[in-house]
Parts: sequence; C-alpha cells; structure tokens
Amino acid sequence: MTVTGPAGFRAAGVTAGLKASGKPDVALVVNDGPRYDAAAVFTSNRVRAAPVQWCESIIGRGVISAVFLNSGGANACTGPGGYGDTADTAAHVGALLAVPAEQIAICSTGLIGERLPMDKIAAGVLASHAALSATGGSDAAIAIMTTDSVPKNILIQGPGFTVGGMAKGAGMLAPGLATMLVVLTTDAEVGSADLDAALRAATRVTFDRVDSDGATSTNDTVLLLASGASGVRPPQPVLQAVVTKACAGLAHQLIADAEGATKEISIQVVHAATEDDAVEVGRAVARNNLVKTAFFGGDANWGRILAAVGTTRAAFDPHQIDVAINDVWICRGGSVGDDRAGVDMSGREAKVTIDLHAGTEQARIVTNDLSHAYVHENSAYST
Amino acid sequence: MTVTGPAGFRAAGVTAGLKASGKPDVALVVNDGPRYDAAAVFTSNRVRAAPVQWCESIIGRGVISAVFLNSGGANACTGPGGYGDTADTAAHVGALLAVPAEQIAICSTGLIGERLPMDKIAAGVLASHAALSATGGSDAAIAIMTTDSVPKNILIQGPGFTVGGMAKGAGMLAPGLATMLVVLTTDAEVGSADLDAALRAATRVTFDRVDSDGATSTNDTVLLLASGASGVRPPQPVLQAVVTKACAGLAHQLIADAEGATKEISIQVVHAATEDDAVEVGRAVARNNLVKTAFFGGDANWGRILAAVGTTRAAFDPHQIDVAINDVWICRGGSVGDDRAGVDMSGREAKVTIDLHAGTEQARIVTNDLSHAYVHENSAYST
Repeated sequence: MTVTGPAGFRAAGVTAGLKASGKPDVALVVNDGPRYDAAAVFTSNRVRAAPVQWCESIIGRGVISAVFLNSGGANACTGPGGYGDTADTAAHVGALLAVPAEQIAICSTGLIGERLPMDKIAAGVLASHAALSATGGSDAAIAIMTTDSVPKNILIQGPGFTVGGMAKGAGMLAPGLATMLVVLTTDAEVGSADLDAALRAATRVTFDRVDSDGATSTNDTVLLLASGASGVRPPQPVLQAVVTKACAGLAHQLIADAEGATKEISIQVVHAATEDDAVEVGRAVARNNLVKTAFFGGDANWGRILAAVGTTRAAFDPHQIDVAINDVWICRGGSVGDDRAGVDMSGREAKVTIDLHAGTEQARIVTNDLSHAYVHENSAYST
Repeated sequence: MTVTGPAGFRAAGVTAGLKASGKPDVALVVNDGPRYDAAAVFTSNRVRAAPVQWCESIIGRGVISAVFLNSGGANACTGPGGYGDTADTAAHVGALLAVPAEQIAICSTGLIGERLPMDKIAAGVLASHAALSATGGSDAAIAIMTTDSVPKNILIQGPGFTVGGMAKGAGMLAPGLATMLVVLTTDAEVGSADLDAALRAATRVTFDRVDSDGATSTNDTVLLLASGASGVRPPQPVLQAVVTKACAGLAHQLIADAEGATKEISIQVVHAATEDDAVEVGRAVARNNLVKTAFFGGDANWGRILAAVGTTRAAFDPHQIDVAINDVWICRGGSVGDDRAGVDMSGREAKVTIDLHAGTEQARIVTNDLSHAYVHENSAYST
C-alpha cells in the first residue's frame, strides 16, 4: 500500500533532527530500474522554493533515479544559498547511488525563509540511504508528515502493473505554509512523455480540485517514477485511469485529514457552459469565507453561495440558478426554494449542488469549512 | 457632519419594526433642489438585489429626488415579487413627495433570500416622511446601521460648496452578508454626467480598495445627489477632489469599525509596472487567509506574503521583491532581509510595503486580520 508496492523501488524514512519533536523528518525513495522514466507537476505559485526550481531544471530529461524529501523546513525564499543547498543535497544522494545529481529529485516542506541545517541534512542523507528497503514505503510516508494526523499511502492494481504512492498535506494549509508533496511509483514500462501526459490528466481532476483555503504553496510537487520492472506496457488510457485512481485516493485522504476543519464540503457544479466555468464557480464558492463559516455554523445559507457564484465570469442567468445543500433544493430560479429546515447539516460530509442551467459540462471541487481551529492553528504558531 | 450638511437636503431615521432589536431601521434622504442631478455605482456582483436592479434601471436619467433605505432585510434573491416590493416602495415614497417613482432610489441591507414585510415598510415610509428635517442626517445614519458599532458620517467643505455623506458597513462583512451602503449629498451645481465621473474616480481609489474579506455583496450601493442649492459650479477637478476626500473619510470609518478584527492592515504596493498590477498584488495579499491569520497572531510572517504575491499575474521577478512590515524590510531580494525580531506587531494598525521593482506605479489596499471573532460572527448567526 505504499511507494514500495510496485516492483523496483526501495524507500526509507529516518530522523535527522530537523523537527524539534524528534519525529522522523527525512525520506528517500529509490528507483532500482531497469528504467528510470519520470514526470512531475509543480505548484502554480510564481514564488518557488529552491527544491521546486531544482526539480524543474532536471525533469526535462525525464529521468529520475531517486527522490529525497525533508520535512522541518521549506527551503523557500532562501536565495542562491538555498538553491545551492538543494543542489548539494542532490549531489550527495547521487554520489551514494552512483548516478548524476541531475537524476535526484528533492522535495522540502516547512517554514519559508530559513536555510536548512545542512549538517543535519547530510546526516539524514546517509541514514536514509543506509535504511533503504523494499518495504520502507510506510516509513517514508511517516517521515514526510507535518501537521498530518495520519500518513497517506495508496496502491492501485492495474492489469499487470501497479501504481503506489504517498502524500503529505493536512488538507488545510497549516502553519508555515504546509505543502502538498506526492510521490507516485509504478512498475509499468512507460516513457516519460506518456508518464507526463497521464500525470497531468490525473492531477487536473484530482489534486487541482481540492481547494482547502485558496492559498497556494511555494513547494507543491507531485512526482511519478516508473521502474518498468513489471515488463508491462499498458495502453495510455489504462495507465491514465490507474494513475488517476491513485491520485484521487490520495486527494481524498488529504481532504479527510484537514486539521482545523469540521466539515468536508463537496461542491458539484452541473449544467455549466464549459468545464472551466464549472471549476471557476466551484472554486469561488469553496474560497468564500462567508460560505465556509456558514458551514462551520451548520447554517444552510444559500444566499452566501449565490453571492459567491455572482462574483464569477461563468455563463449563467442569476434568475435561473438552482442550489441544493445535501440534496434539498433550497434555492430555485435564483430565489427561495424548498424549506431550508429540511436540510440536515449534522454530518461531517456536506454536499452542495449548483445547477447553472447554461450547458452540459460539470466539475466537482472539494473544500473544508472555516473554523476556530483554523484561525488558531494559523495564528498561534510561533515562528 | 451628515447628509443634511449641504444645503437643500432633509433626512430622517425612524423605527419601522424590521429589526427584532427595535432599533431604528428605516431612513429617508430627500433632495429639495433646485436641482436633482445624481450618479451611482453598484456592486460588481452579478447576483444583484432587487433594490440594486431598481436603482440601475432609473439612474440612467441622472435624476434622483430621494433615497429610501432599510436595514433588517436585503431583498436579494427574492424573485419578481421582491422586485415588485421595491417598485411599490418607490411609488409610495414618490407619491408622498409628488415626484415619479423613477426618481426614488431604494437601498436595502440584511439577510438574503427573504421577502420584506411590506406592511412595516409602508409604515416606515410614512413615518420617515413625517420626520424629515434639515438636521435629520444623523438619525438617518443611525437607522441604516446593522452590525456597525458606530454611525458613519462625513462633511467636507469645498470652495463655495460642501459634500456630506453617510455610510453603513462594519468593515468586515457580517452576518447575512451585510452590505456597504453610502449616500453622498452636495449643494454644488453639477450635471449628472460630471457627478458620475467624479463619483467613479473617487470610489475607484477609496471604497474599491477596502477589501475586508474578499466577499462581494449583492446590495452594495453608493449614491451621490446634488441639489445645486449653493449655486456654485465647481471645476471638475475640484469636485472630484472633494468627493474623493469624502469617500476616503467614510472608507476609513468602515474599515476602522471592522467587527471581529483586531488589526487594520494597510498594504502599499510600490514600483509596480501598472496600477492594475499593484491593485492585484495588494488584493491577493489582503485576501490570503494565511496572511490574515498571521497578523491576528502578531506574526511578521513575510513568507506567506511572498507566497500570496506569487499567485498573481503581476509583473515582477521573485528574486527582486522586497517586503517591509511596519517599515522593517524583513524580506530583501525575495529572501531573508532585516531581523524580524525588529518588527513591532503590537499596535492595531499594521503596514505592509511590497516593492515589486517593476515600474513606477503604486496602489494601497486596506484590509483586516482574520480572527476568532470573525469566525464566530459569521458562523454562530442563526438565520
């Protein structure tokens, strides 16, 4: 059920002393081949951490032999010195594995604006390398946790090949801009271009549609490594379907572990003119603090939802919108619909359906409510 | 210091029973001429309340004789029936003043999605008309309060003419989507086209740059009425300057009364390539929940500010941005700058300066922090 589920991978998770808590904070995932094809997607934020810049510079070759990850520090906004730290770490890992530094991906998560303690990182490189094992995936997933309450792993079986993965991120962006990091592995035999196409198609409809608080990290990274160890070359649609299933499973675990949140809110926008319209409307509702606080309060306040929809450029007629909360259509034709007293808001899962009556497209965005615990977590944290 | 400060205006504020609290909830502002030129700007939300739709339909003529305002109900998302209620109210006021309904502006604020109790509105029309006086401006300002802790009035003296005004809005959008309503009056002699130009120029750099929680109301309305009673025709730049000063004064009162907020945060973006870039960057920072909670926690977390800037399309080089909090440049060149320990975060007012090093333009956005009280106010409200 981990990154070491597919054949051809070893992993480790160890304690390097980056976290004050003394918990594991360094992970290493190694592809033992016979192939080393890889693809990646990164944060859309233009302010990019050093490890993101590093990964972007090497992913063009489509070859990654290993991923070194650390929690306890984001190495973002650290200037040329921070970038040098990332390059040095890649060189160190590469030397141990006897591959060029340019085949080593680096991921970091933690506080922005502080250099990493390189002595501890170096020790973590050595310790994680020494601990590598074909069953080390679960240790790796634990080592990349920050405010996550549980590690997040997945394994999806395809026809003759498997896709494994691990993720970190507490759904809600947490103190110090916690980052979403994902490493996916597969033993399928796939070239990097096809991996890239499958990964982009998968993330577009999974991770890209989880919108916890609208904030975008400087460090988000999703990597997909293929060892080819199964000897199976899946057709592209099959590969894409299995990768998408793995991403969807991890995305669900991310939102379900949203610290500070009391509700998971699924926003389904239907009968949109375009898929982009549906996504824009869903995102506007997901990011609206008045909607989010209403759900925290258990208030089926459809007026706030309509006001959020009204801020978008999507095609719709304000007099034609219907809104349901938990399947009760409390807004019909942009006005009062069924009795809001009929809406049961007691559960942890809530569903909003917005019918734009403007076409045939749809999309789903998943978010959380805005709670006292969110404010506490993101304000009381002392940096 | 009110809408009845300029010559030619009467006003009143009375209790019609719309508010459960029994506080004043209906206001009337009447222009006694000799001229009745007017201009208005409305919310950019595409979901518009009935009174906004009504005002939009009549403002094209540029003639407004009176404004009737109610708190205790937004009359938004109320369908054709709600629009009919607004039109009926305008007709009622018009009949009492012996002018066409199409010269009566209507403003409402309160909960979305419920019809107004028209018997109480009708009684409020009669009572406010009976109470009209040349010193009634302060009563009117009190009657339009919702979660406001203080009424908001202003009077600016120009050369030979004055501009008065009142506003409601508690800075932070409050329960039921509280609305920003503003009525400005002047005794200057100005045609409606010039009033419109002055009002748009003024709101663009004042109300449009107060961004409390990023949410946009269905009811926001700013009206400017000119009686011409002073007989003075100010040059356009003079008119615009005085109207801008009045708007700036009211905007400051709105943000200073932000319920649930513990800090007023002024975000100054300098050396932007365009003014639009500066506004986009300022708004992205103002709307970022991680930035807002950091300020609530007294944490000079410049990394979150940089991450927010990184989500914009503005022209900048991530390695060239400087950020100061309360004049301490804690981020220089996109990396660590002066010691953050030197930042005093104890005051209620905080200042963020973002230097994009991309041009010569600038803009200022004013916002609040995100506090426990905000979550409480917007979730605990029972509708």
